[in-house]
Amino acid sequence: MIALYWAEDGRFPPGDRGLAYGDGLFETIRVDGGSAHLKAYHLDRMTRDAARLHIPVNRSELEHIFHQAVERYSVHYSVDSWILKLTLTRGSGGRGYRPSPNMKPNLLVSHAAMPPLAPASGVAVDFSRVPLTVNPLLAGIKSLNRIEQVMAASELQDGLFEVLMANPAGHIVEGTRTNLFIETDDGWRTPSPDSVAVRGVMRRYVIERLRANAEEVHEAPILLDDMLASSCRGVYLTNSVLGVVSVRTLAGQDLPVTGRLATICGSTPKTE
Amino acid sequence: MIALYWAEDGRFPPGDRGLAYGDGLFETIRVDGGSAHLKAYHLDRMTRDAARLHIPVNRSELEHIFHQAVERYSVHYSVDSWILKLTLTRGSGGRGYRPSPNMKPNLLVSHAAMPPLAPASGVAVDFSRVPLTVNPLLAGIKSLNRIEQVMAASELQDGLFEVLMANPAGHIVEGTRTNLFIETDDGWRTPSPDSVAVRGVMRRYVIERLRANAEEVHEAPILLDDMLASSCRGVYLTNSVLGVVSVRTLAGQDLPVTGRLATICGSTPKTE
Repeated sequence: MIALYWAEDGRFPPGDRGLAYGDGLFETIRVDGGSAHLKAYHLDRMTRDAARLHIPVNRSELEHIFHQAVERYSVHYSVDSWILKLTLTRGSGGRGYRPSPNMKPNLLVSHAAMPPLAPASGVAVDFSRVPLTVNPLLAGIKSLNRIEQVMAASELQDGLFEVLMANPAGHIVEGTRTNLFIETDDGWRTPSPDSVAVRGVMRRYVIERLRANAEEVHEAPILLDDMLASSCRGVYLTNSVLGVVSVRTLAGQDLPVTGRLATICGSTPKTE
Repeated sequence: MIALYWAEDGRFPPGDRGLAYGDGLFETIRVDGGSAHLKAYHLDRMTRDAARLHIPVNRSELEHIFHQAVERYSVHYSVDSWILKLTLTRGSGGRGYRPSPNMKPNLLVSHAAMPPLAPASGVAVDFSRVPLTVNPLLAGIKSLNRIEQVMAASELQDGLFEVLMANPAGHIVEGTRTNLFIETDDGWRTPSPDSVAVRGVMRRYVIERLRANAEEVHEAPILLDDMLASSCRGVYLTNSVLGVVSVRTLAGQDLPVTGRLATICGSTPKTE
């Protein structure tokens, strides 16, 4: 059983391990007029990542809370889009880092306004000075350990939509809040799931849509040269709230913008 | 100015970035009969690490809260030892990962009972299956991003005091809650500050005590072979609450136990 907290009640247990160690997970979900984008994908990921961290939750309990939350907050927004956030932690207690055997997870539910969407004409992107380190055991987990992304996002200046982070091997892996796709002469490419810090639900949706459209998708490293080569037909960032975003300039250099990925996937998918 | 929260009041702001992203720091400090071990070292580290994360705090404000907390909680413990915990976060707000320019940090203060001390005869230690990844920009910072340590500490079975974590280069770097020292024919060795996840205040104290005793200390990588070689005179773990701990067995293999590091440093340093 999960202990449920609503952010608007203004309290959360101070002994929670999410606060103490970032020992938990989160999902941010776009909701339009009472229906949630990629709902099943968000629930899948939180259930899978909780199991990887040995946090005992089941999908149906999460889904029940999800429905409660959408119903509760929808009255504030009527037809507008908004963001539902679920923060799941291992709970309170344990001896230092070591969890106790039978901990009860805490789930904090909150809502927020939609951030501004990116223009279809594309966005300006640069490289982060913060290196990305991904623990192979934790790759892809949308955990509460996000200081690297915070430090990288601190570099965002007005006019810049995102910064891209590279790993120690020099592969360009992802943005602070987005996954990366490029279109080349050989099809589509995105970094492999074992190399990413966060395995976005929109990343999964895009790969599925591409394959459903008989497009080739390779999960393989992306180097700076791959993005700047003449064989590169487009660079895209994906995020479940913001959808598919075309990159217009990378570190001041112009890139081709065809919008083809948004055409294939739809810029804002709705899958209940 | 810091916003101060006492854990016993049972509330902490749900929008805090410590919870959302592990965007903050913590210190756990041993207090005996009203006086804190390594107080200046803890304050130094929290002030230094806050500056590295661009969290605006000053040392004198932290010190004032520190004194308040020791006075407040000492009534519960009289002459017993206890643990003071300070959790400092960037505060609430910002746009996603990106912090706002003028955020007000939150500081949560709590207390806990002393954990059991290790016997002078030494402890049993094993290796963790969790690899240690250290971002060069964040090396040594005692941040709230501690899932690797949580996952490694989950492997601790009864009878095992600690597990040691290795980085991708195969260097044995530290335990989940301890730094590592070995004594060899060439003097003392401990991994360099830019390689450790947490740069313990006890690590600093031990290096200073060794050098004050005209002992050679090298900050250099430690390999498994270095610990098992006949030239290894002793393996030690250090932690500001538990002091200097001798390792008696490593993955089932006996090690020499001379207790020399505790003799030089004192097993429980007191420096106000």
